Amino acid sequence: MSKRGRFITLEGGEGVGKSTNVAFVEAWLKQQGVEVILTREPGGTPRAEAIRALLLDPSQTEPLDCDAELLLMFAARAQHLAQKIVPALERGAWVVCDRFTDATFAYQGGGRGIDPARIAQLEQFVQKGLTPDLTLLLDMSPVAARARLEGRLRDQQTQRDRFEQEQDDFFQAVRQAYLSRAAAAPERFALINAEQSLKDVQATLANTLEERIALWR
Amino acid sequence: MSKRGRFITLEGGEGVGKSTNVAFVEAWLKQQGVEVILTREPGGTPRAEAIRALLLDPSQTEPLDCDAELLLMFAARAQHLAQKIVPALERGAWVVCDRFTDATFAYQGGGRGIDPARIAQLEQFVQKGLTPDLTLLLDMSPVAARARLEGRLRDQQTQRDRFEQEQDDFFQAVRQAYLSRAAAAPERFALINAEQSLKDVQATLANTLEERIALWR
Repeated sequence: MSKRGRFITLEGGEGVGKSTNVAFVEAWLKQQGVEVILTREPGGTPRAEAIRALLLDPSQTEPLDCDAELLLMFAARAQHLAQKIVPALERGAWVVCDRFTDATFAYQGGGRGIDPARIAQLEQFVQKGLTPDLTLLLDMSPVAARARLEGRLRDQQTQRDRFEQEQDDFFQAVRQAYLSRAAAAPERFALINAEQSLKDVQATLANTLEERIALWR
Repeated sequence: MSKRGRFITLEGGEGVGKSTNVAFVEAWLKQQGVEVILTREPGGTPRAEAIRALLLDPSQTEPLDCDAELLLMFAARAQHLAQKIVPALERGAWVVCDRFTDATFAYQGGGRGIDPARIAQLEQFVQKGLTPDLTLLLDMSPVAARARLEGRLRDQQTQRDRFEQEQDDFFQAVRQAYLSRAAAAPERFALINAEQSLKDVQATLANTLEERIALWR
């Protein structure tokens, strides 16, 4: 049987540059000759993307209960793991995922105020011990991130989703929760200063990948 | 503060006559002068009905992972409880619900083979001890139920949903799981023989309601 692949996640709040940098990580790994699956959460498969649509939908006037939001996140995750992530890792492909469970701790835990112990219960229920091998956390002050996000929404003329509509104290809490998780698991996390120029962010990402991958050999 | 309302659920497999009889229970209670909210699971609120649509959708070719199905059921339930059931009970209304958590133990437990202990974990996570005051279980052999279901699908020219497409051994397992739950909690369950004529089923329902409600006074 081939060697199991590695599971790398990118995390960070709205506007920190995840989309651009997740594509950079994918391209960098491919250059090393690795088979890479690029995916995202919530979503990543047709059924999980249908759950994502419910989670982000800003049009409904009925408020979404916090527990319901949390359970939808993990329902999408269970589907994504079963249909895409685990089969890819098992056949030896590397999986690069735009957000994963750290985002649930940051958004539903930090942002919504759900007890992290309740989130950890569902994490164990769904993942049964599976965690990323490396998590690249793009960190930026929420004020800087908001300016970027607003520029993007203006350029693309898109409506804000349910999370993008949140206020500054929500994003401060999201950032603090991400930073606490990174501090608690330094062997898994790499903290990337996303306020640098894009060139410098990507140089840092490349160095980080090189260093961490060397440790896995 | 007004007295808390009562929570009554109707359970049973496909084709046992739940829709007809849930309406009978609602009408019977209204005749007693009780404020009744009639609702159903999965669903009962706009967001929970959107989750129901994902659960029943037979059109997708991607299989729905068992854990994802279970988490979607409880996501819909969390939403339904928070937005509809608990507020109704708290203001003193009675809630009559077409299916609830016993259906999850029957379908996802008995039918899909998920360990009931895992379902009980999510039940506690979402319901925090809230259970129905009375559960009316309409019981019928799956062979008789299938004949009725097929008649209805033919008359209405509707497509089978994801659950209606299952085979006989699935429905046998669903029935057995329902019967075990009823045997384990006789103070909450009333077992109704749904193979009787509709008139006799409804006479039994009325007698049962009368007897149980007398105990609550």
